Amino acid sequence: MDPSDEQRSASSSSHVFVHNPHLDAMKDDILYHFSLGTKTHDLPAMFGDVKFVCVGGSPWRMKSFIEYIAAELAMEDPKSDYPNICAGTDRYAMYKVGPVLSVSHGMGIPSIAIMLHELIKLLHHARCTNVTIIRIGTSGGIGLEPGTVVVTKQSVDATFLPKFEQVILGKTVVRNTDLDLSLAEDLLQCSKELNQFETVIGNTMCTLDFYEGQARLDGAFCAYTEKDKQDYLSRAREAGVCNIEMESSVFAAMCKLSGLRAAVVCVTLLDRLKGDQLSSSHEVLHNYQMRPQVLVGSYIKKQLKAKMQRS
Amino acid sequence: MDPSDEQRSASSSSHVFVHNPHLDAMKDDILYHFSLGTKTHDLPAMFGDVKFVCVGGSPWRMKSFIEYIAAELAMEDPKSDYPNICAGTDRYAMYKVGPVLSVSHGMGIPSIAIMLHELIKLLHHARCTNVTIIRIGTSGGIGLEPGTVVVTKQSVDATFLPKFEQVILGKTVVRNTDLDLSLAEDLLQCSKELNQFETVIGNTMCTLDFYEGQARLDGAFCAYTEKDKQDYLSRAREAGVCNIEMESSVFAAMCKLSGLRAAVVCVTLLDRLKGDQLSSSHEVLHNYQMRPQVLVGSYIKKQLKAKMQRS
Repeated sequence: MDPSDEQRSASSSSHVFVHNPHLDAMKDDILYHFSLGTKTHDLPAMFGDVKFVCVGGSPWRMKSFIEYIAAELAMEDPKSDYPNICAGTDRYAMYKVGPVLSVSHGMGIPSIAIMLHELIKLLHHARCTNVTIIRIGTSGGIGLEPGTVVVTKQSVDATFLPKFEQVILGKTVVRNTDLDLSLAEDLLQCSKELNQFETVIGNTMCTLDFYEGQARLDGAFCAYTEKDKQDYLSRAREAGVCNIEMESSVFAAMCKLSGLRAAVVCVTLLDRLKGDQLSSSHEVLHNYQMRPQVLVGSYIKKQLKAKMQRS
Repeated sequence: MDPSDEQRSASSSSHVFVHNPHLDAMKDDILYHFSLGTKTHDLPAMFGDVKFVCVGGSPWRMKSFIEYIAAELAMEDPKSDYPNICAGTDRYAMYKVGPVLSVSHGMGIPSIAIMLHELIKLLHHARCTNVTIIRIGTSGGIGLEPGTVVVTKQSVDATFLPKFEQVILGKTVVRNTDLDLSLAEDLLQCSKELNQFETVIGNTMCTLDFYEGQARLDGAFCAYTEKDKQDYLSRAREAGVCNIEMESSVFAAMCKLSGLRAAVVCVTLLDRLKGDQLSSSHEVLHNYQMRPQVLVGSYIKKQLKAKMQRS
């Protein structure tokens, strides 16, 4: 691949792009962390109809999402049985209902990156077209009422710059972290129509660490003061950061490279200007965590309805 | 904490160190990703006797390890029931038998770092002393027969330097990644006595990505040639790198800061000079993955036997 290809948006075509000339020469491709492969599974038959992929950290949440979306789309299995497609491994969990795929990705950039490499190859091998991918997650908010949903405009790093640094052969390559603005606006519009909770569009800071990396005072190590923390978070807020999580930058970068229309929709579980610990009740946190699911479920339903009316 | 404290080894005392003056002021401490807390759980009663902590990526493997160690130490539960102590969350799984704690950490530096922050606080709150911690994992080998076990001397980054860069308040702090050499030598000696598989001591490269970050040719993106890959891996080998994985650097750094005697024991699943895909049979890979468990099980058994003889 020519380096200049890196920044080429693949939006001119509706296919899922891999950028790897070596793949063609491989007799078969083992997607090890999914326990799937081109020789052992008929990927076009299993996944060829996928139009929406939703990803999130927790395997439980991604199972709950597929149950929720099945009910929303009136595609429930009468036995309510949604088998884990990746049952041969415990690295990730994957569920499917109709055109919707739900995949867990664990916590942090490296964990979601392994999943995305194999997911992009899966969608490529399955010859999927016009795929939209949305990360539904949790985050810490900055100056927002807990429970607010943030749709990410740009993912920024710990210095508030919109870039993702990928190390390749020991050298750093900088990648763009823009997300699809029209998709973000469609999601915001959906939230207005739902009118159940507050949703905003803003920048999301993506860090490599949950404690020191996010200026928390409650980790095993902390060499800074409450004032240092407040100063840092205030600077983040001034730079347009609405929330902090740990996967959006590589998600944005890899989806852009592969031509996937992508969004990040995270609920804020607390206001980091007011605290660090997640001390809300289980019920409150559960309710908050449902919000990205409800919003994305509503969006998918609307899209499928519009498509049916067109055809 | 004074910055100079960062490099202070805590080996002069047998306690587990947190370096965070803010913790004392907290009424209670919620270890959110374990679903445990100081107010809701009696941590000294639950964990005060812990002397060995084994951590690994896969929750299944860490459950299998506790079953294995229970049998090795003749401490089996007659019902063979080893409940997941973190059953309230799906972020990590945790099991305990006697003085041995087994905890999963997911994949990648951020995922293991969240776990270690909360584990170090847990051991601190439980007032544990003389704790040894060992990561048992899988890795790609460089020029080693697949199935070889590598005990890490130093964890090095993608440029082969023995350091871990932690971003704090947007600024990079460099931390030492030395592991306990006497523990590594004890483990090597155990392997010689077992005489079941090859074990070596060497450097381990820790990367943020499994595909481009480890010079694989089979990811969704690859802009380099087979020759570029071989050149990079050859340079790694010349720098003393025996294997590549994704957690050792932050593990070494955080254990050193908290005064935990630490080792990394990873089996190599393939020789990266000869390929990228994990195409060995399920049985062969399973056998390889047992080796760090067998080695560490043997070490723990020997230590406990020696302790009994002393007392």
